[in-house]
Amino acid sequence: MVPGVEIADEELRRPVRPRVGRTGFLNCVPLFWGLARTAALLSIDLVEDTPDALAQRLLAGDLDVATVPVADYLLNRDRLVLLPGIATSSDGPVMSCAIVSKVPIVGLEGRTFAIASSSPTCGRLAQLLLKRQEVEGPRYVTSSEDLRAALQEADAIALTGDEVLRYAVDRAARGGLHVYDLGALWRRWTGLPFVFGVWAVRRDVAARAPHMVREVHGALLAARDLAMTEAAELARRAAEWEVFDAVTLEHYFTRALDYSLSDRQLAGLTEFARCTGHEDFTVDTTGPSAVFAPIT
Amino acid sequence: MVPGVEIADEELRRPVRPRVGRTGFLNCVPLFWGLARTAALLSIDLVEDTPDALAQRLLAGDLDVATVPVADYLLNRDRLVLLPGIATSSDGPVMSCAIVSKVPIVGLEGRTFAIASSSPTCGRLAQLLLKRQEVEGPRYVTSSEDLRAALQEADAIALTGDEVLRYAVDRAARGGLHVYDLGALWRRWTGLPFVFGVWAVRRDVAARAPHMVREVHGALLAARDLAMTEAAELARRAAEWEVFDAVTLEHYFTRALDYSLSDRQLAGLTEFARCTGHEDFTVDTTGPSAVFAPIT
Repeated sequence: MVPGVEIADEELRRPVRPRVGRTGFLNCVPLFWGLARTAALLSIDLVEDTPDALAQRLLAGDLDVATVPVADYLLNRDRLVLLPGIATSSDGPVMSCAIVSKVPIVGLEGRTFAIASSSPTCGRLAQLLLKRQEVEGPRYVTSSEDLRAALQEADAIALTGDEVLRYAVDRAARGGLHVYDLGALWRRWTGLPFVFGVWAVRRDVAARAPHMVREVHGALLAARDLAMTEAAELARRAAEWEVFDAVTLEHYFTRALDYSLSDRQLAGLTEFARCTGHEDFTVDTTGPSAVFAPIT
Repeated sequence: MVPGVEIADEELRRPVRPRVGRTGFLNCVPLFWGLARTAALLSIDLVEDTPDALAQRLLAGDLDVATVPVADYLLNRDRLVLLPGIATSSDGPVMSCAIVSKVPIVGLEGRTFAIASSSPTCGRLAQLLLKRQEVEGPRYVTSSEDLRAALQEADAIALTGDEVLRYAVDRAARGGLHVYDLGALWRRWTGLPFVFGVWAVRRDVAARAPHMVREVHGALLAARDLAMTEAAELARRAAEWEVFDAVTLEHYFTRALDYSLSDRQLAGLTEFARCTGHEDFTVDTTGPSAVFAPIT
């Protein structure tokens, strides 16, 4: 035993920063901007992954707080609670979540339909909308999020991401492909916004570390608010490193996407829950089955 | 071939962000703070690694710009150039680079002396200073940066890092160990500051992508300047997640460390080069063997 070293080792143990998960998609760039500009990045351990992997890692205990696809949240809501007031939704075209198809939707009857494994919510939404269009019996297969590879095997794919955004922006890029914006279709059908991603925390973490959850929640809200205030500058800076121009990015960040989670979004979320077999889902905010982490 | 997909794939190719390497030590936190607050993190791909690994990755082409130990820079200066005006030095006690020894330095004759593999500059400096103290024949061995493990095998260790900083701050933590601040010893010996780390870029990258180097250099200087302006707030926020209090951290960031690279630092660097067999090192700023990347 070396004198002094044991003590020092014990005292060197630092408090552990909350591990927070974000996607690498453009839709998370405003929050990243805000977390940077407010220096909250100093206080969290920010991890980047695909939406589906973030859900898995949150459930596995590898992350404390993460943005997760709403389909994953609904499937695991006995173990997860939402952070109030913040989500990723659209009230009309979302631009970055779509069905990309070789034929018009109505011609997909009996054809092969790929669902990108990274986009479970997008897949569920596409299935709902095809059913509503009375497109019977497409064969659903899981694919990678590589659109090109998926369309070698399948006739259509439902996926989320920046590649889809490209199709929304540039008709020429589509070539002969048909692109259906899932935010727009949902809105036309229900009259409601669609919530694609929510911010969630495990129930046990919310119970054990409410202070941490409050801090992360506050940091996310402040980041979101600052990013919206600085959206023009954010879009200009982001455009230097993306294939999209600043005008497109500002539109996407501030008009296509909505980072709030208010009554209209909650109504949209409840409607999606009802449509996907979670009829018992209600937005109760108190009691043991509360939807929201006890933030206040 | 799926129509449209080929075009989209080509057009989706984004410009690649410069890959910039920083250490995970506290001495890099001010730059991280500044890069976050100025939102430069949106424009670079910031990678964290140990100082020695950063040097290896920079030389291997895995990084475009990185902070590297001055010993690594001197050994590879045929392939590297410095970014002007920015470095990590101290003009007296540095607090985080030291010899930690079971016995007073003069008693190390013939004993085993460990050099942490992650701290090559610290090791070279310790060897120089022992020689100057006429401590003959310590057996130098390479160790991990785990101080406890190293001192099970060796009588002393030279290393850099936050664990050493703990010893500088808290005498009680040292137990029976002797701690020699290498910045203080160097200053007493030479009257000069010691440059521990420099920011370097490969010569071929500086020649091929001067605009990128200029952008990263500007971002680093702006980050450093903002961090110094906001040092009190930075120290307060950092202290929430470190074992050190805000007063200690502000002292460390603003008084122990110096992030400039001016004539005094360059004189210290030249003196260290001379002492370590790089007698031909001079701070020429033009021509093919220029020390500095052609930034302006």
